[in-house]
Amino acid sequence: MTAPLDDQHIAEAVARDMAAKDRVFGAFGIAIVAVRPGEVSLSMTVREDMLNGHDICHGGVVFTLADTAFAMACNSSNQTAVAAAVEISFVAAAENGEVLTAQAFERVRRRRTGIYDITVTGRDGRLIALARGHAHRIAKKVVAQLPSPGLEP
Amino acid sequence: MTAPLDDQHIAEAVARDMAAKDRVFGAFGIAIVAVRPGEVSLSMTVREDMLNGHDICHGGVVFTLADTAFAMACNSSNQTAVAAAVEISFVAAAENGEVLTAQAFERVRRRRTGIYDITVTGRDGRLIALARGHAHRIAKKVVAQLPSPGLEP
Amino acid sequence: MTAPLDDQHIAEAVARDMAAKDRVFGAFGIAIVAVRPGEVSLSMTVREDMLNGHDICHGGVVFTLADTAFAMACNSSNQTAVAAAVEISFVAAAENGEVLTAQAFERVRRRRTGIYDITVTGRDGRLIALARGHAHRIAKKVVAQLPSPGLEP
Amino acid sequence: MTAPLDDQHIAEAVARDMAAKDRVFGAFGIAIVAVRPGEVSLSMTVREDMLNGHDICHGGVVFTLADTAFAMACNSSNQTAVAAAVEISFVAAAENGEVLTAQAFERVRRRRTGIYDITVTGRDGRLIALARGHAHRIAKKVVAQLPSPGLEP
Repeated sequence: MTAPLDDQHIAEAVARDMAAKDRVFGAFGIAIVAVRPGEVSLSMTVREDMLNGHDICHGGVVFTLADTAFAMACNSSNQTAVAAAVEISFVAAAENGEVLTAQAFERVRRRRTGIYDITVTGRDGRLIALARGHAHRIAKKVVAQLPSPGLEP
Repeated sequence: MTAPLDDQHIAEAVARDMAAKDRVFGAFGIAIVAVRPGEVSLSMTVREDMLNGHDICHGGVVFTLADTAFAMACNSSNQTAVAAAVEISFVAAAENGEVLTAQAFERVRRRRTGIYDITVTGRDGRLIALARGHAHRIAKKVVAQLPSPGLEP
Repeated sequence: MTAPLDDQHIAEAVARDMAAKDRVFGAFGIAIVAVRPGEVSLSMTVREDMLNGHDICHGGVVFTLADTAFAMACNSSNQTAVAAAVEISFVAAAENGEVLTAQAFERVRRRRTGIYDITVTGRDGRLIALARGHAHRIAKKVVAQLPSPGLEP
Repeated sequence: MTAPLDDQHIAEAVARDMAAKDRVFGAFGIAIVAVRPGEVSLSMTVREDMLNGHDICHGGVVFTLADTAFAMACNSSNQTAVAAAVEISFVAAAENGEVLTAQAFERVRRRRTGIYDITVTGRDGRLIALARGHAHRIAKKVVAQLPSPGLEP
């Protein structure tokens, strides 16, 4: 399959592929809101089984949503990237039943590495968490049948 | 209930209380391995529904285990502490079915803040992730019926 | 001196006061480019004595410029704030003689804490470093003679 | 010069070479305390020109000492490594005239990356700062005339 696809189509196809294969994406009820090259927006509704002992959304669940958006954003050119490190700051509590949105976008793109900023916001737009992810790229496509512009000569 | 309990008994009671109330603790099948004041060790078996698209444990799940150990360690004196920020470095992949262990311990304890280091290791002891958590303490007990040494005059 | 000053005048007065008292500000030849409430831009020329063994600007010097902008931004309401933690990502090398600009701005403002994002850019606008600072506020003015809106009832 | 040198001799030679070439090392009066493969200890006396407006050591100066120890530790096998990111937590103030010690050691060593933990302590051993550095290795020696075990076939 060598027909050229533009970056937007590649990013969408990679996001669909990752969403289908990622078991946590399904288990957590995550949905894709928007995808652009280097930029992904996801949503998720906080459920009873996602709460901690304070009856608010567990920090690990907020992180998981942010990390999933980061993963999709850093793989969006169809060159596989893995998370090397992530820092997250918890700003406000997310409530049971609340719809959270995570937006990840590329701050720095280099051949082998990348830095991505992620925000998680609540129903009313208030900031729930800020995160920054560091990715390492490897010489492998995400979706074998699609081109990966950065990987080809 | 004003009978004095030593720090070890308080730490154990807080951990049991948090484990019972934290819905993610149960949903993820997390178990308490060991508890000491300022130090907590937890275990969890990676399940099929915790895998990402590479068929390895999702980074969010590894983080959740580390974050839960951090939360128990920073609350272990029965003074409520909340996670302000956490940095995690992903070192190696965790496989489906693998038993992971997270160990959190106090590096810095101050009246209003604390810093905790967390390691996540695999079945064979290899390092899966390194994390560092920053906690803010608030003037509230975790378990109302127990004393909280730092909170009392 | 109880005459009301607006936030802009307070931020400028605090920056001038900090610049005058901070010995590193002078020793590194840092200059104030712009100040607004919660936002500060500084510049500095990389000198021979700021180079590391690769003949590029030492990471500690880039950090110092970023950290100084962060400090001025988080103190700009005339309520003293101290750096609790900073993460910095080094993106590109800065050369000898190059003028660097650090811009810090407030991402999150809470009563006792704050989160600030800082970018350091080179002569040509390329990104040199990205940083994020976590501040703790204390109940003390920076400039005693000026009001501090957040501290007053 | 192909005579085999052991890891300890390589680490010492790299540290001496870096100390001689790094202008900040000299300008800040940093001294080597101890060197082992993957582990470096440095000292520095806080000077008047290193103080901030609170008359304590500027965070950028504490970072610079930590970052220099990190750089020497991650280059100690004579394979060049560069700092990709560093997180620092400021725990206590360092005073004018105080001798600070930074100890960096390798937590994770991989072919292309590494993670290093750094502590900065004061005269009395109290913790001044905790840092963690992320390094990227490149295919180049630090000292051309010495072997670099990781780089050779």
